[in-house]
Amino acid sequence: MTTHWRERPIGIVGLGLIGGSLGLDLQAQELEVRALVHRRSTAERAQERGLAQRIDTDPAVLQDCGLVILALPLDRLLEPDPSLVAALPADAVITDVGSVKQPIQERWASLHRRFVPSHPMAGTAQAGVEAGLAGLFQGRPWVATPTAETDPEALTAVRGLAESIGAHWLECPAAAHDQAVALISHMPVLVSAALLQSADSGGTAAPALVRALASSGFADTSRIGGGNPELGTLMARTNRAAVLSALEQYQRQLQQLQSLVEGEQWEALQQELMHCQALRPEFL
Amino acid sequence: MTTHWRERPIGIVGLGLIGGSLGLDLQAQELEVRALVHRRSTAERAQERGLAQRIDTDPAVLQDCGLVILALPLDRLLEPDPSLVAALPADAVITDVGSVKQPIQERWASLHRRFVPSHPMAGTAQAGVEAGLAGLFQGRPWVATPTAETDPEALTAVRGLAESIGAHWLECPAAAHDQAVALISHMPVLVSAALLQSADSGGTAAPALVRALASSGFADTSRIGGGNPELGTLMARTNRAAVLSALEQYQRQLQQLQSLVEGEQWEALQQELMHCQALRPEFL
Repeated sequence: MTTHWRERPIGIVGLGLIGGSLGLDLQAQELEVRALVHRRSTAERAQERGLAQRIDTDPAVLQDCGLVILALPLDRLLEPDPSLVAALPADAVITDVGSVKQPIQERWASLHRRFVPSHPMAGTAQAGVEAGLAGLFQGRPWVATPTAETDPEALTAVRGLAESIGAHWLECPAAAHDQAVALISHMPVLVSAALLQSADSGGTAAPALVRALASSGFADTSRIGGGNPELGTLMARTNRAAVLSALEQYQRQLQQLQSLVEGEQWEALQQELMHCQALRPEFL
Repeated sequence: MTTHWRERPIGIVGLGLIGGSLGLDLQAQELEVRALVHRRSTAERAQERGLAQRIDTDPAVLQDCGLVILALPLDRLLEPDPSLVAALPADAVITDVGSVKQPIQERWASLHRRFVPSHPMAGTAQAGVEAGLAGLFQGRPWVATPTAETDPEALTAVRGLAESIGAHWLECPAAAHDQAVALISHMPVLVSAALLQSADSGGTAAPALVRALASSGFADTSRIGGGNPELGTLMARTNRAAVLSALEQYQRQLQQLQSLVEGEQWEALQQELMHCQALRPEFL
């Protein structure tokens, strides 16, 4: 029998957008939060912002923590620093925030017996120690992808933490999660990026005119394609098979619309666009 | 020598988003605005909203107008009501607001000798008699596509009107306009619609999970694909060749990104995404 997750300090590794926001929300519940960061300058700025009570660059800061959230970028979750792994208390519940679950789950299954793969789906365009903000997870999905080996008590603890800060808890297999986010989040980055590239090259259209005539609609559609390049690349790399499958599915749909335009099937095109108009609210 | 456009009433045909907004802005300059609408109920509501001083369903309302703006949907600009054409004063300057210029220019060249093809590029998601709002054109492009046959004085009048309500005046050939808007506005509707369709079908991903995990990024990217189906179809129909050419160009770009993911060329993918990140501000 272990103690309740609220009875021991909570550890956060990384104080970027997700880690910093967690620190603010958890401290607002009078919980003790300790954080591990990479750089001394980050520790100082995080201290000024009050993102945790104790912040250090020494992994020993995680000692005594009952629950540790690894709020690190995907690549650092997949190739974790050995000193970090060694410093995680053996009896603590460990969870992560990675946006691709299958490879993380495979990697961490052998690294810690109380690891719970999870993905809080909240974000802004910001990153880094200045990005964290209170209330970020309110009403947002927090997806866990437990396996048969996942410690049920550890899973309950992570769920308790997620729900305490207003997140909407979901559970599904890691493969299902990765396919869904490929379709709704990772593949669309490439779709949006290709739009910027084709607008840039211009083809038969004059580049300056294309820029002058870009409207708010183009700003919306190109937003995620013009986002963080490291993140976009990491998502494609770590979720490659699902992203490629989503891309093929996407291209089939686009080719179908193209063939309606080629065949001047305007009635059918309008039906498809009416279907899209009716669909969109389901995704909001 | 004709009179200055400000010295005679201005006519607006259609009081939807564009026509209604023009009515509000022009009246704010103490100009006399007369409007022709299709339905009696629209005339009454437009009267209540003060979109013009005189509003009628009889084309005779345009008599005496020195400048008439045809604020009609694309299909009604391409197949104009003969009674409307007959009612346009022979000495008046006539302009339109259609988002595709070449077919409109070809159609109207023989219908009125003082026709100026133009396209004010302003919009909101709203349509109809309730949509018009003051200041809509402030800082937005207003593109004219004159030919060698365009009356220079008529062109100057339309420019004067556009600039008087704060629009940014541009001139280019109709074909260049149509190629640019295909790339920046018409083709992206299909790109965005295909995203909704592939998210709907889900493929290997669970439909309910895809919906639960959709984020603000997906909301942005799918916005124009879930927009007005009649408008999307009309743009594809009236600008078909340029839309198909833009679609081909788009698909080449997307396939190039796809091949980087297939070939696991992560460094090259990140370079492309960095280029996109740097590009996007040029289109805002």
